Amino acid sequence: MKTGFFKVKTREEVWDEFHQFSLLDAEEVPLGLALNRVLANSIFAEEDLPSFTRSTVDGYAVRAQDTFGASESQPSLLEIVGEVDMGETPQLELSNGKAARIPTGGMLPAGSDSVVMVEYTEELDRKSVAISRSVAPLENVVRTGDDFRAGQEVLHAGRRLRAQEVGLLAGLGLNRVPVRRQPQVAIISTGDEIVPVEQKPRPGELRDINSHSLAAMVENCGGVPLQLGLAPDQFRELRDKCQEALDRADICLISGGSSVGSRDLTLEVLASFEQSDVLVHGVAISPGKPTLLVKAGEKGFWGLPGHVTSAMVVFQVLVRPFISYLSGAALSLGEGRPIQARLSRNVVSKQGREDFIRVKLREEDDGLKADPVFGESALISTLVHAEGLVCIDRHAEGLYEGETVEVIRV
Amino acid sequence: MKTGFFKVKTREEVWDEFHQFSLLDAEEVPLGLALNRVLANSIFAEEDLPSFTRSTVDGYAVRAQDTFGASESQPSLLEIVGEVDMGETPQLELSNGKAARIPTGGMLPAGSDSVVMVEYTEELDRKSVAISRSVAPLENVVRTGDDFRAGQEVLHAGRRLRAQEVGLLAGLGLNRVPVRRQPQVAIISTGDEIVPVEQKPRPGELRDINSHSLAAMVENCGGVPLQLGLAPDQFRELRDKCQEALDRADICLISGGSSVGSRDLTLEVLASFEQSDVLVHGVAISPGKPTLLVKAGEKGFWGLPGHVTSAMVVFQVLVRPFISYLSGAALSLGEGRPIQARLSRNVVSKQGREDFIRVKLREEDDGLKADPVFGESALISTLVHAEGLVCIDRHAEGLYEGETVEVIRV
Repeated sequence: MKTGFFKVKTREEVWDEFHQFSLLDAEEVPLGLALNRVLANSIFAEEDLPSFTRSTVDGYAVRAQDTFGASESQPSLLEIVGEVDMGETPQLELSNGKAARIPTGGMLPAGSDSVVMVEYTEELDRKSVAISRSVAPLENVVRTGDDFRAGQEVLHAGRRLRAQEVGLLAGLGLNRVPVRRQPQVAIISTGDEIVPVEQKPRPGELRDINSHSLAAMVENCGGVPLQLGLAPDQFRELRDKCQEALDRADICLISGGSSVGSRDLTLEVLASFEQSDVLVHGVAISPGKPTLLVKAGEKGFWGLPGHVTSAMVVFQVLVRPFISYLSGAALSLGEGRPIQARLSRNVVSKQGREDFIRVKLREEDDGLKADPVFGESALISTLVHAEGLVCIDRHAEGLYEGETVEVIRV
Repeated sequence: MKTGFFKVKTREEVWDEFHQFSLLDAEEVPLGLALNRVLANSIFAEEDLPSFTRSTVDGYAVRAQDTFGASESQPSLLEIVGEVDMGETPQLELSNGKAARIPTGGMLPAGSDSVVMVEYTEELDRKSVAISRSVAPLENVVRTGDDFRAGQEVLHAGRRLRAQEVGLLAGLGLNRVPVRRQPQVAIISTGDEIVPVEQKPRPGELRDINSHSLAAMVENCGGVPLQLGLAPDQFRELRDKCQEALDRADICLISGGSSVGSRDLTLEVLASFEQSDVLVHGVAISPGKPTLLVKAGEKGFWGLPGHVTSAMVVFQVLVRPFISYLSGAALSLGEGRPIQARLSRNVVSKQGREDFIRVKLREEDDGLKADPVFGESALISTLVHAEGLVCIDRHAEGLYEGETVEVIRV
C-alpha cells in the first residue's frame, strides 16, 4: 500500500482524486431503459427532424400572399383543389388563389407556405373557401429540420436523459442507446453494536440504518446497491466482506467505525489489499471529517462515518459526485439546481472546513426561508425534518440571518 | 355514457374531478423497495429511537459537574473505574470523581451525564485521567428517544419516502412498509401518420415520440408504464386497445389525435364503454386545451394532445397530480419546490387560460435568469432545451422582463 503523508483534504481536492479512476464502460440499452442514464457518446441526427414540413393545425394550406388583407368583412376567396391525407405525400400543387384541406400533422403540398386555421374559414361549397384572416408565410407550420438538422449534434456525451431526451431519441429512431454502465455499489455496515433491521436490539445495540439509507441514495443517483450486510469490528470478517465487494462491485461504501479504533481497522483492512492506494484520509467538511477513499485496483472504497446524518452528508457531497464522475456526467453537490432561500437565523461555523447544515424550507410573504435544523449528526430525525443542506464556505465564520443561501436538496 | 353539457374547465376544476376516483390499494413492500413510494398509513414509533443514551464521541463518560472549571493549566483529575464495551450494557456506576472510557456509540454508564472527548484528556496511568476542558451536562451525548419517542407519529400517511425516511424505518425495525400500489399506466399513441421507432418513416410519416416520453414521465412519478403501442384512427382498433388498457391498467393515456376528427374518435371510443363518464372535455391551459378525462368504471382515461410538447405539459400539469392523488400524496404542479428566477424578456399571454411557457435557466451575477424557449409545441427541441415550465396566471396578459417567476422542473 502507498500511504505517504496524510493531510486533511478539501472537498475540491477529493474531487480531483476522482481522475485516478477510469470511467465506467459504455453499454447499449433499449430505449425503454434509458431514462435517467448518462449518455456515453454524443448523439448526432442522422436525418432531419421533422422529416417533412407539416401543419400544426386543422385548416387550409395556402400561399400566405393570397390571404393578405383578408378580414371578416372582406374575406379572401380561394379555390379548394383537394385534401391532404395523413401520413401521405400530397399529389397536389398549389398555385395562386388555391387552397387544400389539411389536418394537423399533414404534409404541406407543394406551392403552399402556410396554413389557415379552420376557425377562420368557411367553405362556401366543396370547391371554394372564404378566408377571414390573413396568415404570414410559415404560420401554423413546422418545417423540415425545425427540431434538428441531419448531421447536427443533438445531445452531448455526459447528458443525463430526461423524458424529453428519451422522446427525442425515439423521434430519431434510436431504439438502443449508448450509455455508461450503472455502477454496482457494495454497502457494508460495521460496528459490534449494530444489528440487522429484523432483529430487536438488546440494550446497547442499534439497528443498521446506514445500509438502508445509503442503498436508497445509491439508487437515487443511478447506481445499483448491493447490500453486503454487517461486519463486526474484526479484521478477518471485514476483510472477507471487502474482498466480496472487490469481486462484485465497482464501488464499496463501508460505514460505521466512528470510533477511532474502528476507523483504524477499516484503514488496516483496505491497506491489506494489493495495489491499494489511500487517496483521501480526512476531509475538511463537517459533518464527515473522518472519511476515507482508497483505490484498490480499479475499485473505489469509501470509509464513511458511522453517524447516520454524517454518512448521508458525505454521500451527498463526495460519493454522489464520484458516481457522476464515473458515469461521465458533471460533478456537482446535488442533482439539478439548488433552491435559493433566506436564512432565518445566524449560524456559526468553524473556519477551515465546509460546514453542511441541515435546513427546513418555509414559504413566507417575502420569499422562501431556510430554518436550520440543529441536532447531533448521530440522529436521523434532523434529516427527516430537513429538505436540504446549506454549505458554509470554509473561509466564513458563519452566516447571518437574512443571507441568501443555496439549498441542495437531500 | 354521461356527457352532459361541456365547458372548458380550469386546472383546479380538473383537479377537483380527481375525487371521483378511489385511491390505489395499499400493499406491503420490503424496505429495499420502499424508496420514492408513498406511505399508505401513518407510522408510529413502537419504541424509543435511539433506545438508550449513548456517546457521540470517543472519550470518557463523566459527571459534568466534576469537570467544571477544568483547563489545560488546571485539569480535573478523575479516577478511571472501567470501560464501556460496544453493544453492551455497562455494569459500571459512576459516583463523584469517577470516569469510564467510552467509545463512540457506547451506552452511558449509570451516574454519568456527559462525555469528554479524548482530545481533551490525558491518562496519567491506567487508573487516572486528567480532563483539560469542562463539559456541560448532556454534552456529546444523544439520549433515549432524542430522534423519536415510543408512540409518537414519525411519518404521516401520504409522505413520499426519501433515503432518510427509509433509514428511519430501518431504525424502527420496519422491514416491510405499507405503501400505495404503483399505478399501472397504459399508453397508446394514435394517428395514421405515426410509425414505431424501429421503422423508417416514409414521407408524411413520423416516429412515435409520445409513447416513449410519456412512459418516461410515468416512471419518473412512480407509475409503471405499459406501452400498448400504436392504434390507427379506426374505431375498432382503438377500442380494442382501450379494452386492453381497461383490463390491465389503472390509468390509460391516449395521445395523438390533435386533429378534430381524431379527437372525436377518441371520445367516441371512450364513450362506448359501459359506465363511462366524461369528466373533462377541454382545459383552459395552453398548450393542452383539447384534453379529455373519462372515467370508465374505476379507471381514468386521459386523451392527451398529439403534439409532443403539449402532451408532456398536460402530463406535468394534470396527469402527474392525478397519479399523486391516486397514491394519496399531495397535489402539486411539480415534484418538490419550484426554483425562482427572473424572466429575461416580456412574454405575452392570453387571458382566461393558464399559459405554460418553456424556459431555460442561466446564472447571472444578479441571480438566476429564465429565458423563454419559444417554438411550436409540435417540436420536441423546445423541451430538450428547456429546464422547466413557468405558469402564467389566467388573469394575466403576460409577464414582464425582470419579474420573478417560479420554474417547475420538467
